[in-house]
Amino acid sequence: MKDSKPLHEKKNTAILLIHCPDKQGILATVTEFLNENHGNIIYLDQYVDRVQKIFYMRVEWELADFAIPTAKIGEYFNTLIAARLNMDWKLYFSTDIPRMAVFVSTMSHCLFDILSRYTAQEWEVEIPLIISNHEDMRPVAERFGIDYFCFPVDSHNKAAQEAAELALLAEYRINFIVLARYMQILSEDFVSHYPNRIINIHHSFLPAFAGAKPYHAAYERGVKLIGATSHYVTGNLDAGPIITQDVTRCSHIDTVNSLIRKGRDLEKIVLSNAVFSHIQRKVLVYRNKTVVFN
Amino acid sequence: MKDSKPLHEKKNTAILLIHCPDKQGILATVTEFLNENHGNIIYLDQYVDRVQKIFYMRVEWELADFAIPTAKIGEYFNTLIAARLNMDWKLYFSTDIPRMAVFVSTMSHCLFDILSRYTAQEWEVEIPLIISNHEDMRPVAERFGIDYFCFPVDSHNKAAQEAAELALLAEYRINFIVLARYMQILSEDFVSHYPNRIINIHHSFLPAFAGAKPYHAAYERGVKLIGATSHYVTGNLDAGPIITQDVTRCSHIDTVNSLIRKGRDLEKIVLSNAVFSHIQRKVLVYRNKTVVFN
Amino acid sequence: MKDSKPLHEKKNTAILLIHCPDKQGILATVTEFLNENHGNIIYLDQYVDRVQKIFYMRVEWELADFAIPTAKIGEYFNTLIAARLNMDWKLYFSTDIPRMAVFVSTMSHCLFDILSRYTAQEWEVEIPLIISNHEDMRPVAERFGIDYFCFPVDSHNKAAQEAAELALLAEYRINFIVLARYMQILSEDFVSHYPNRIINIHHSFLPAFAGAKPYHAAYERGVKLIGATSHYVTGNLDAGPIITQDVTRCSHIDTVNSLIRKGRDLEKIVLSNAVFSHIQRKVLVYRNKTVVFN
Amino acid sequence: MKDSKPLHEKKNTAILLIHCPDKQGILATVTEFLNENHGNIIYLDQYVDRVQKIFYMRVEWELADFAIPTAKIGEYFNTLIAARLNMDWKLYFSTDIPRMAVFVSTMSHCLFDILSRYTAQEWEVEIPLIISNHEDMRPVAERFGIDYFCFPVDSHNKAAQEAAELALLAEYRINFIVLARYMQILSEDFVSHYPNRIINIHHSFLPAFAGAKPYHAAYERGVKLIGATSHYVTGNLDAGPIITQDVTRCSHIDTVNSLIRKGRDLEKIVLSNAVFSHIQRKVLVYRNKTVVFN
Repeated sequence: MKDSKPLHEKKNTAILLIHCPDKQGILATVTEFLNENHGNIIYLDQYVDRVQKIFYMRVEWELADFAIPTAKIGEYFNTLIAARLNMDWKLYFSTDIPRMAVFVSTMSHCLFDILSRYTAQEWEVEIPLIISNHEDMRPVAERFGIDYFCFPVDSHNKAAQEAAELALLAEYRINFIVLARYMQILSEDFVSHYPNRIINIHHSFLPAFAGAKPYHAAYERGVKLIGATSHYVTGNLDAGPIITQDVTRCSHIDTVNSLIRKGRDLEKIVLSNAVFSHIQRKVLVYRNKTVVFN
Repeated sequence: MKDSKPLHEKKNTAILLIHCPDKQGILATVTEFLNENHGNIIYLDQYVDRVQKIFYMRVEWELADFAIPTAKIGEYFNTLIAARLNMDWKLYFSTDIPRMAVFVSTMSHCLFDILSRYTAQEWEVEIPLIISNHEDMRPVAERFGIDYFCFPVDSHNKAAQEAAELALLAEYRINFIVLARYMQILSEDFVSHYPNRIINIHHSFLPAFAGAKPYHAAYERGVKLIGATSHYVTGNLDAGPIITQDVTRCSHIDTVNSLIRKGRDLEKIVLSNAVFSHIQRKVLVYRNKTVVFN
Repeated sequence: MKDSKPLHEKKNTAILLIHCPDKQGILATVTEFLNENHGNIIYLDQYVDRVQKIFYMRVEWELADFAIPTAKIGEYFNTLIAARLNMDWKLYFSTDIPRMAVFVSTMSHCLFDILSRYTAQEWEVEIPLIISNHEDMRPVAERFGIDYFCFPVDSHNKAAQEAAELALLAEYRINFIVLARYMQILSEDFVSHYPNRIINIHHSFLPAFAGAKPYHAAYERGVKLIGATSHYVTGNLDAGPIITQDVTRCSHIDTVNSLIRKGRDLEKIVLSNAVFSHIQRKVLVYRNKTVVFN
Repeated sequence: MKDSKPLHEKKNTAILLIHCPDKQGILATVTEFLNENHGNIIYLDQYVDRVQKIFYMRVEWELADFAIPTAKIGEYFNTLIAARLNMDWKLYFSTDIPRMAVFVSTMSHCLFDILSRYTAQEWEVEIPLIISNHEDMRPVAERFGIDYFCFPVDSHNKAAQEAAELALLAEYRINFIVLARYMQILSEDFVSHYPNRIINIHHSFLPAFAGAKPYHAAYERGVKLIGATSHYVTGNLDAGPIITQDVTRCSHIDTVNSLIRKGRDLEKIVLSNAVFSHIQRKVLVYRNKTVVFN
């Protein structure tokens, strides 16, 4: 169902995301390890939080000539480097294409934006599954040839429906979930299955106007900018780590309806930017805040 | 093929777009005319260019109780008001849904953005026709159930192909054309059939980087912002009246490819904003510049 | 002490700011009144809030040939127009230069920005008076030749000090007050003497991070944009009608200090934009929201 | 004449700016060199241009415990590292406060913005000297206690006046020059004395509207955004390496005068941002483009 040439080039690389207590020499140690083993670094970015004294790093290198077998990289890195430096680390391979599920309710703008990027191969991702609490978006899913399942949720069936959704997500081997204006609060239990792997778009500049009907609240307050915020979902509503935010100008002539309309463009672009950073494994979470590498 | 409830409400209104030499009392004269005839004004915006001494106005009123029959409004307005004040004016009715053709080449991002808004009924418009010089976008058109015609153009067949396109546009009763990254220059003759009714998106902040390969040129120059410009097409390449523009930040780390990627989001939003202003009959052109009412 | 040629031209005009219940014909009535009396309109903007059904208008006309004597315009307008249409209106004359007091504490960036515009004659305003609760900015005031008074405030002397300030403001015939990072909460009584005539700059994107230390709060929350908000002061802290807002991008690499630094540029520009709108009599307040004409 | 507590903290650090042909291990080599010699790194950013295959780096470390005497760092670094890796490098010490001259003509907004930051100690810089081709800004210089020299320039005396300016710059031991709306073109000879050390502000979004009267040109073209660009001055007018750019929205209602007014705020903020990057030694120039570290 993909109809374009991809915008990204095929790579055979490994990616390490690291954070650990800061001390002298971490950067030299990691880059030395890669150099010695003939790993050609094609991306490196690091950042030191000097308040918390935490070192953060993203490094990506080519596997072609790398001396350590791919299956052993994690073990070697852990033994030789990470354990000694008390590192929290994750290893990814560019050839493992992440598998994403989209949750929607009745609005199409974020879903269309995601599916058009998917079709145009802007992103290296697989989207095998769309889940909704309504039937409205089924025709869109069908148009793009993606499986669609509807789980209507009410106060009585929520636990059972979430269990069914989790089973489906497992069956489809889903790595992360995008809530594309899914107007249903996920339970803490559900969220705990995908920690820092559920991306939401909230239609306000958080922490302003958390909760329901932010455009109505923005209209009432008479703000001169409206915003959108993409964040990882945690047990606290609209309080998870923020990945990206943006705003657009409004004025006294805007009605709630025109704010909603302007907000749709913000929401879809902000959400897609956050998803793109996540897919590239450029987001690190620490203490409810994100490090988003360029 | 439209699958959502419309964002806009149905109206039964008339819209006047006016420009004329400025003098005292024009605004009072026009509003008096509407008031006397029981036209309830629901939108009024006006602007006076004090350098050129030109008065511009957009006024929209409800037809429900209007004393002049709809078919006679133009004649009455011309006789009683416009002729005396030397006005250039256009009259539209909200129940006349504009019919739009989309021209594309091989890139899908602007096309998808337009079609997703169309499907979501963000816009009061009909899109019966997509024309291209390549076959690439045919599957997208089919997915949305819109007729697709391919006219490959080379130096020998250009006049004939444009003639065929014009015939098709007439057959489909097309009011205006959107070039959604159509990578082919239209002849002056073709353009003259749709004056100020062909909307293009150029992938730079015009007048910087007019012509081919603007992202390559921006990369070479080392700019710190890239832009996109939507304008009406005239006989002068990339020099028509600008409807809207926007920019996004870039830096030394951007490659030509990442500029292209960032630019896609700019292009689609800027183009759609321009199309939305045009559909609402909020754009007036005078001496190669636009007045775009809010 | 002003050292440049003014950016603004001298005018001899009257300005009416109006709001009233909306009904047909208000605009025609007002413009007819001005036309009949030979008032050449050089600015007109109006807006109808269709939810609250309120009509808002700002109109400015030349007094040179106006048939009604300047001293009588208010009376005539009220009798012939305003009383019949239940209007709330204010009349200003461009030759009445507004007199502004600046309140500061210890930070100079907003004060310098205001005084540099004043010196460059960007604004048609008089600034005869700076009031502070600290001595720090006295050298700046002296450098610009403006009277400076220091009223240290503590929990015991607040009422007395505010009374002294009010006396001084009266003596200097001050029309409106600008709080240029004045880090002291004014009492409700004080505020009631200058309703919608005290302009504050709050260093966050309100309603996010109201109250003290917003940059620290923004840092803790991990937002990706910081903002500044200029608003009229009311009895409710940081909850008055918003005049203008803006934001700037930040990221994980920002410390509280770098947010403060970036925020200074935002604060001074946002505050000065709000002051400029106020000086031009382009701001109308209704039910804790503003209409800001272009 | 400085009247505030500094926003920056005093540091005793060394800063290396490096670029060289990219190859494996440069980063590890440099960081190892600093670690071995007990240089505590407090800032590190690097970037590889994979098209040109150039490695860029900025690293800053504390001198307190550094094993190599300060006066010998350059020599050691060159011998042990730079010569072997074919590096182009510059070494700075945070205790060497850069000395800046400001060139102005008749407009005060950029000058005031610079001097207010200087007074507020936002920047670690000395500004002992202001040079102008007019007398207009002398009162501003006096108000801030800075030496002011006026060199009127015409077609006959240009070479002599520039020679006198160069002598003065040498006498004041000036490291870099900021053209704060200096409306006079410097000769190639003059520029060659301060390569990549003369910062200009051009009042357009370059490369659009290079040359004279860009706001008039923007008005004529009917653009919907105006911009400002800060760049290093080279022998080619308005074509030097861009340091930073920004834009602000405009519309049909803007006159040339209101564009000029809006542009002033852009110009002063863009110029000051560029100057701040330069003062922090965060700008590297290579082949007419800049790398600006965060």
